[in-house]
Amino acid sequence: MSEEKENIHFELTEELLEQVKLLVDEQKDKELQKLLKEFHYADIAEILDELNLEEAIYVIKLLDSETTSDILMELDEDNREKVLRNLSAKEIAEEVEELDTDDAADMISELPEERQQEVISKIEDEEHKEEIRELLAYEDGTAGALMAKELVKVYETWTVAGCLRRIRGQAEEVTRVHSIYVVTKEEKLIGRLSLKDLIVAKNDQKIADIYISNVDYVTVDEEDEEVAKVMAKYDLEAIPVVDENKTLLGRITIDDIVDVMKEEAERDYQMAAGITGDVDSDDSIFELTKARLPWLFLGLIGGVGAFLIMEGFKGLFVEKAVILFFFTPLIAAMAGNVGVQSSAIIVQGLANDDVRGSINSRLLKEMLLAALNGFVLAIFLFLFVFLFESRVDLALAISVSLVAVIIVAGLIGTFVPLFLNKRGIDPAIATGPFITTSNDILGILLYFWIAKLILGI
Amino acid sequence: MSEEKENIHFELTEELLEQVKLLVDEQKDKELQKLLKEFHYADIAEILDELNLEEAIYVIKLLDSETTSDILMELDEDNREKVLRNLSAKEIAEEVEELDTDDAADMISELPEERQQEVISKIEDEEHKEEIRELLAYEDGTAGALMAKELVKVYETWTVAGCLRRIRGQAEEVTRVHSIYVVTKEEKLIGRLSLKDLIVAKNDQKIADIYISNVDYVTVDEEDEEVAKVMAKYDLEAIPVVDENKTLLGRITIDDIVDVMKEEAERDYQMAAGITGDVDSDDSIFELTKARLPWLFLGLIGGVGAFLIMEGFKGLFVEKAVILFFFTPLIAAMAGNVGVQSSAIIVQGLANDDVRGSINSRLLKEMLLAALNGFVLAIFLFLFVFLFESRVDLALAISVSLVAVIIVAGLIGTFVPLFLNKRGIDPAIATGPFITTSNDILGILLYFWIAKLILGI
Repeated sequence: MSEEKENIHFELTEELLEQVKLLVDEQKDKELQKLLKEFHYADIAEILDELNLEEAIYVIKLLDSETTSDILMELDEDNREKVLRNLSAKEIAEEVEELDTDDAADMISELPEERQQEVISKIEDEEHKEEIRELLAYEDGTAGALMAKELVKVYETWTVAGCLRRIRGQAEEVTRVHSIYVVTKEEKLIGRLSLKDLIVAKNDQKIADIYISNVDYVTVDEEDEEVAKVMAKYDLEAIPVVDENKTLLGRITIDDIVDVMKEEAERDYQMAAGITGDVDSDDSIFELTKARLPWLFLGLIGGVGAFLIMEGFKGLFVEKAVILFFFTPLIAAMAGNVGVQSSAIIVQGLANDDVRGSINSRLLKEMLLAALNGFVLAIFLFLFVFLFESRVDLALAISVSLVAVIIVAGLIGTFVPLFLNKRGIDPAIATGPFITTSNDILGILLYFWIAKLILGI
Repeated sequence: MSEEKENIHFELTEELLEQVKLLVDEQKDKELQKLLKEFHYADIAEILDELNLEEAIYVIKLLDSETTSDILMELDEDNREKVLRNLSAKEIAEEVEELDTDDAADMISELPEERQQEVISKIEDEEHKEEIRELLAYEDGTAGALMAKELVKVYETWTVAGCLRRIRGQAEEVTRVHSIYVVTKEEKLIGRLSLKDLIVAKNDQKIADIYISNVDYVTVDEEDEEVAKVMAKYDLEAIPVVDENKTLLGRITIDDIVDVMKEEAERDYQMAAGITGDVDSDDSIFELTKARLPWLFLGLIGGVGAFLIMEGFKGLFVEKAVILFFFTPLIAAMAGNVGVQSSAIIVQGLANDDVRGSINSRLLKEMLLAALNGFVLAIFLFLFVFLFESRVDLALAISVSLVAVIIVAGLIGTFVPLFLNKRGIDPAIATGPFITTSNDILGILLYFWIAKLILGI
């Protein structure tokens, strides 16, 4: 039973880690090879991420490059960088030879500029070398940088039988055949076929007669997030990439898109929490500080702003209604929370392309929603203040302000991401500290104004 | 050019929407069919989501059920529910017949209990009916509820030629062939093959000799998020689902997993913003209130807590250092921001399974990080207070408190999600309002304690 489970849920235990470390330490190469042979390369990468650098390099040098190239691609970026720094250009080139062109280009692009050329020059397969050079030229974050050159293509003039014979050759170097792309003599993409279609078709049929002309594709300069949207929407598992003349250049597979989507979700989540730069919990304290401190500094500025407002109202309220100051954390918290809620909904709607209709109707809806929420909360606050202080005017001033603050916070939370989006700025920066801080200040200001008005001070 | 672009980027324009509405209004069926024929079903669903109910139903009844079944699956859940309410059980059964079993079961499961049986009884294909019944029995959120019964399987005893011949039949009803699953006579999963392997193999080879025995699979009661992790980690495009005896029951494809991942990311994002229940910006004000108000109420309770603390320190500070009260929004904001940052990092690390090592070492790291950030921020705050009030003791009290508050907030933000996770509770609820509110209160309390100590009041 436990052996069967292994297939599904690899779990990196302390025992396993100790066993690997011991075998490395005692240089028991045969046993180590035998042990690691059982694991998927993604699992071996997980083990290596927990070893120290010398141990990891020992294991990498021990295994054959067919396996290690895949392991290297699965390592944490920091660890991969360290390992690669300890391999010669020749050794890296050997790993690169084993990788698909997209992974190969990714690995090389992470190297320092001067090493890149050295490694490329050591690649023996001339075609592979040229293809990697081409991929490296595309801008990061575009379809070109994401695609692989490996694909199966057939010409429209071929027959099914000839096609099956010829693609046997092409297919051997493509890990997975999703679609067969049909091109003209000039390499222009005109359609697609599935292997299934080919198997089901008769041997003497012409490709031109059986291919499906309705083929989705993206151009090479398309943004990767846009490619992800298209593939998710149309449930595609691979999509061909073409240039402006529709010449077939490569293909993007869903597993790379899954990674893009994961990264995007993580970036948005972090941005909402006031963290920039795609860090993770294992990064150094310095990197984490760089990602977190700027947003905290923004919060500090906001706090100083709130201080100055309260200082400004000191003369008015300290004598007559000092209690008002004690509700500022509540007001600020509510303004912040409402702002984050409404901006999160809008940011998510924008990401899914389902925010339609005018900005005004959005603002009206949010106003009604905030008014409803604010009213319910204000009743509780009114009762609390009244019971605590036995003053209707104070209770009224504080709870009316709360409603006003919540409405304004909701409107700002709705408006800011919509506005940023119209301006072509990623609306995700609007959630989190940015909206909290501005709503804090504005909420407190509004609170004191309204309280002043109602109390007639 | 514009026609070519259409393939990639369908954009729902006002003009197109008006055109569709007009054709529906004037009942120009032929023209409408011709117009819609050009679009992908996912695009037609986008159009229908913007029509009113009568118009949408008109279009659904106009098109053939092969297209409409796919359109229905792509509609917003609310709209699908409304449309289905206006179709007869017979009509729904016709749609269901066209769908793969997983989509069919999903559509039926959204119907009210009493209609479900009625619709199922109207399905004519007995096998389809039985398979849907089976799928409906699995618990929501498990591999069983996510899988489809459509798959291509071969017995180990077959030859390649016989296999190719026989799978032609099976393959016709499977939209995409990812893997061919190899089973024993007793239907036990023992391996896999790709179509490519089959094409590359010789006709007279036995399946038993060429199949790959190393096959990943999940059991039918596995959680869907776990399935997503496995598929993403091993770059799988489909995974077979088995019962406890390893009997092959179905398969899950990557497009369904992409949806699971998207939903999970959206839920986590919303949870961090203080929104529960997977709402979107088009939901009703009532639904949005239900998702948002509880978290706001939590914030209100927190605010009242902060009030009570400040009220408690009133006697001490109002006379001698009222300025301290004016920094409470700053202290609360910093405590909240730091808490959200550190919890977000931990929550994300836990989701990715890469939080390893002891809780203590995590807490130590966060303490150092928070101390570093806090120290930098405290210098600025010290200078500000000193320049503003010309009192070293006040400036010191406030800035030392800030450092302490930031450290404690970081520790709580790190500890709470780790603790929840150990207890088997989704740590994502720890970010957002929960951590902000508790850090607000604790931060303010700590702030006044330390200030009292330093100022010696």
